[in-house]
Amino acid sequence: MKTYYRSGMCADITEKNIGQNVKLCGWVQNRRDLGGVVFIDLRDRTGVVQLVFNEENDAEALKVADGLRNEYVIQTEGEVVKRDPANYNDNISTGTIEVICSQVKILDSAKTPPIYVDDSDTSKESVRLKYRYLDLRKNKMHNSMVTRHKVAKYIRNFLDDSEFVEVETPFLTKPTPEGARSFLVPSRVQKGNFFALPQSPQLFKQILMVSGFDRYYQIVKCFRDEDLRQDRQPEFTQVDIEMSFVDEDDVININEKMIAGLFKEMLDVDVALPLKRMTYVDAMNRFGSDKPDLRFGLELKDIKKAVENSEFKVFADNIKNGGDVRAINAEGCGDIFSRREIDALVDFVKIYKAKGLAWLKVTDEGVKSPIEKFLTDQEVNDILVATDAKPGDLILIVADKQNIVWDALGQLRLEIARKLELDLKGKYEFVWITDFPLLEYDEDEKRYVAIHHPFTSPKPEDIELLDTDPLKARARAYDIVLNGAEIGGGSIRIHNNELQEKLFKVLGFSEEKASENFGFLLESFKYGTPPHGGIAYGLDRIVMEILGTDNIRDVIAFPKTQNHSCPMTMAPDVAEEARLEELGLILKKL
Amino acid sequence: MKTYYRSGMCADITEKNIGQNVKLCGWVQNRRDLGGVVFIDLRDRTGVVQLVFNEENDAEALKVADGLRNEYVIQTEGEVVKRDPANYNDNISTGTIEVICSQVKILDSAKTPPIYVDDSDTSKESVRLKYRYLDLRKNKMHNSMVTRHKVAKYIRNFLDDSEFVEVETPFLTKPTPEGARSFLVPSRVQKGNFFALPQSPQLFKQILMVSGFDRYYQIVKCFRDEDLRQDRQPEFTQVDIEMSFVDEDDVININEKMIAGLFKEMLDVDVALPLKRMTYVDAMNRFGSDKPDLRFGLELKDIKKAVENSEFKVFADNIKNGGDVRAINAEGCGDIFSRREIDALVDFVKIYKAKGLAWLKVTDEGVKSPIEKFLTDQEVNDILVATDAKPGDLILIVADKQNIVWDALGQLRLEIARKLELDLKGKYEFVWITDFPLLEYDEDEKRYVAIHHPFTSPKPEDIELLDTDPLKARARAYDIVLNGAEIGGGSIRIHNNELQEKLFKVLGFSEEKASENFGFLLESFKYGTPPHGGIAYGLDRIVMEILGTDNIRDVIAFPKTQNHSCPMTMAPDVAEEARLEELGLILKKL
Repeated sequence: MKTYYRSGMCADITEKNIGQNVKLCGWVQNRRDLGGVVFIDLRDRTGVVQLVFNEENDAEALKVADGLRNEYVIQTEGEVVKRDPANYNDNISTGTIEVICSQVKILDSAKTPPIYVDDSDTSKESVRLKYRYLDLRKNKMHNSMVTRHKVAKYIRNFLDDSEFVEVETPFLTKPTPEGARSFLVPSRVQKGNFFALPQSPQLFKQILMVSGFDRYYQIVKCFRDEDLRQDRQPEFTQVDIEMSFVDEDDVININEKMIAGLFKEMLDVDVALPLKRMTYVDAMNRFGSDKPDLRFGLELKDIKKAVENSEFKVFADNIKNGGDVRAINAEGCGDIFSRREIDALVDFVKIYKAKGLAWLKVTDEGVKSPIEKFLTDQEVNDILVATDAKPGDLILIVADKQNIVWDALGQLRLEIARKLELDLKGKYEFVWITDFPLLEYDEDEKRYVAIHHPFTSPKPEDIELLDTDPLKARARAYDIVLNGAEIGGGSIRIHNNELQEKLFKVLGFSEEKASENFGFLLESFKYGTPPHGGIAYGLDRIVMEILGTDNIRDVIAFPKTQNHSCPMTMAPDVAEEARLEELGLILKKL
Repeated sequence: MKTYYRSGMCADITEKNIGQNVKLCGWVQNRRDLGGVVFIDLRDRTGVVQLVFNEENDAEALKVADGLRNEYVIQTEGEVVKRDPANYNDNISTGTIEVICSQVKILDSAKTPPIYVDDSDTSKESVRLKYRYLDLRKNKMHNSMVTRHKVAKYIRNFLDDSEFVEVETPFLTKPTPEGARSFLVPSRVQKGNFFALPQSPQLFKQILMVSGFDRYYQIVKCFRDEDLRQDRQPEFTQVDIEMSFVDEDDVININEKMIAGLFKEMLDVDVALPLKRMTYVDAMNRFGSDKPDLRFGLELKDIKKAVENSEFKVFADNIKNGGDVRAINAEGCGDIFSRREIDALVDFVKIYKAKGLAWLKVTDEGVKSPIEKFLTDQEVNDILVATDAKPGDLILIVADKQNIVWDALGQLRLEIARKLELDLKGKYEFVWITDFPLLEYDEDEKRYVAIHHPFTSPKPEDIELLDTDPLKARARAYDIVLNGAEIGGGSIRIHNNELQEKLFKVLGFSEEKASENFGFLLESFKYGTPPHGGIAYGLDRIVMEILGTDNIRDVIAFPKTQNHSCPMTMAPDVAEEARLEELGLILKKL
């Protein structure tokens, strides 16, 4: 990257360049003065090279070099020489050479930076975000952005090669009351009306299928005005894909090829295809989660049979009332978890609304447990068989309503894995979760709501259930899960007007409401709609998995904090009175 | 693109497939019933293939085919056969074959479409936009979107190969009073405050240079809440580029390589490099425009010398008062323009505030002109020499203030080209315009304002002029112009705090105002800023030039109309009362 200012980049200099004159630019990473000789580590985005200034070579340059401080931007010229082997630096690619400088010019000086521009910096995140321009100078953060770029590029190339067309959909869209909360944008020209920033291009990508685009994708910002959890951002990036004349297998096959290719390219990980598939019910029964982390066992085991007739009423009555009883065998934990640690697990499941956690330590002398006295030998034995237990193991049991058993044990499973500090590094366990329920019942709204969205198709064989037992109807939906995180999800959509109307009826939408929310899509469906389906990925999430970070802000150049603000720019901010006037808005006094 | 529903695409079928059974899906383009035999043109995104249904082959399928109407979506199966040569259709790639169908299934029916789904459709644009999903089915519109995708892809590949990194910058940014009007987004979490949608990522890309990214790009939506001209949209797509340690030549060289490569790829046009460069003053003097259309001559000629001492006071006095006198030689137009047509040109220049338009017809017998009597023979002769005139030519002269002469003759030049219906097809004339003035004087605000933006660097040799004669200072700015349209523009930025402060002083910014508007950028500049510069292109504009269309809405899938609304979705729309409540906003009664 030769330019007017330089002959090339710092870390591109190798022993091949020995004897050559080079012209370099960059930031002063540090300066060391060793008795009249000044050493500068010069940094650009490629890495670091050592500059040497001394009296013999150029007294004037030495004087300038003496005044350099960290993060000064300089331009320098000098000869590449081999270092004395005693001074080799194995930590940098340029560690066997250095540049003896004859000239140096300060292009810009720098105040002492408030954070240490190095991966070893331990500044608080709030300070890092305020001085994001310095934080982004760090190797790790720079690599994070470059990785993000490469991920997007790989996905684009794959989809382009697979004959997908990227089409840009609008950001200023129609607000609809249905679904999560959108950001609104007041219109000045249509005063009193508002645009909404899209939560996803869902409706537009379906419209594009109606338009015959056949294969569409877009890597695009989406927006959700929600109270932030740790891993959410008000603006996030979606990889959005839709295909026509396809069934679930078509979508899944091409997508898992893409994902496997991406992980091979980025991490040199061989992902075996086809990926595992698991129904929603299996995932919940075995892992207590629809995004199961398959990097370790600790599966949930059904022990209802073992205890359904037990004198221990906590189990038996719960089963009689339609509840569930499941157990996790924490192998070897009987020996290593103290009573206090087990009590902490009992408290842990209460977070997830479980009324309690029963436990059995399996020893060579039989089981030890607070509930042992309530169980027959046969019941204990059946539990041990069902959980495949052996001496040293710890059996953890929750008896409760179905959803609570799933949730509490699913979370407990993750908690035990954390406590055991299992080595999960380098493991990438993918699974497709299929056969999700189509609907759930919303107790607040007293109606059924779509779990994915109201355009998700039910399975053909379950359409009748919409009339008889709607909660039993399964969706033609699929999520792709990696290491316990949902990285993408989609479905085959409804493309038939009668089925769509039937579903709207089940959802309790009046014709008016359906038309108000989705009128233009429903109208478009009247002019010949192909069967279609697709998927959407969270790009931020994929990059996080590839980088192995839990912090979404580490994969976004300029993220927002939990209170929707940017510490660097101080956005959001007050608006000028005149602008509000133009928009026809009055700010309510707080 | 084989899927569950089909063996491949319609227009991929060739004579190679004769004898094979194929399974196809698509839309009914039209149906013809020729005495018991039904012919269907089946369309998908690749093109059209002819299906044949007849009694002998399958009576059941024929019955279904008989009920098909335009835009029905069907799935069919049949055998590829060669057509009778008498029935070859040269208009389609599949014109020598047809598919004798044994099965057909209606996947979705269609109402009669309100527009004709064919390039020959002549519906009004308002109807096309309302039924955009049908409009986009047309070959021409589909190709337009595919072309747009290919343009973006070429640019991405070029920049990736040139070691640029795409970094996503925020959409929810801080509102600043300076500059054009932004769309505001009320914050719910920070009630009473607002985000602004970015007009460009300018500040963020400069921050990324401060962060050491060295080469950045982004293809990104930008937003401007302006009253729309014909060729503007409230949301538009920018190709945004920034580089560190560069001068003008570095930016120009790499960008003209990209543009030449793009036009070779898309249109097989050979663009000679380096592109022409022209200073702003030259462009204005010769073409009366800073975006000159170089596909034809009709240059402006300075005739001040010829008339400065003339008895004709309109010319001489204007020159004495510091005005300009320039002429266009409309070659051959003396013979072909009627007196009425010339009078229309006189009216035309008045639109651009010119007080008048003098003209001379050159004939074999001398000149004919209403002002002939006021001019000496020598003056006439000097004018003819200066304009290189010969018999049959028409000389058109404007004497006025400098800006009016430029503007009126610049527009007149285009008007004459239009009247002459010059054949400009297939001509691609690029030029870089350089040495723009840095500042202009804003009569309303009674202060200097930056012509590009306040971070554009003045030329080093002109920095002193900021103190003495600011309007004379030239900027390190450059625009790239194609066939009279500005497709991109940029500059080398100020990277030095003192110079930035000096410029702010000239712009009349208080320290407080500068900090309020650009505080975080100015703060970042204190920690070591590299010299940097860049450019931004209008992607919509580039695609328009490549497709040869004047209508920006033809290169955007779902555009807005001039009143900022979307006829398909009916955005913008009212917001729910509860949402405004959450945002702390009250709608002013209209």
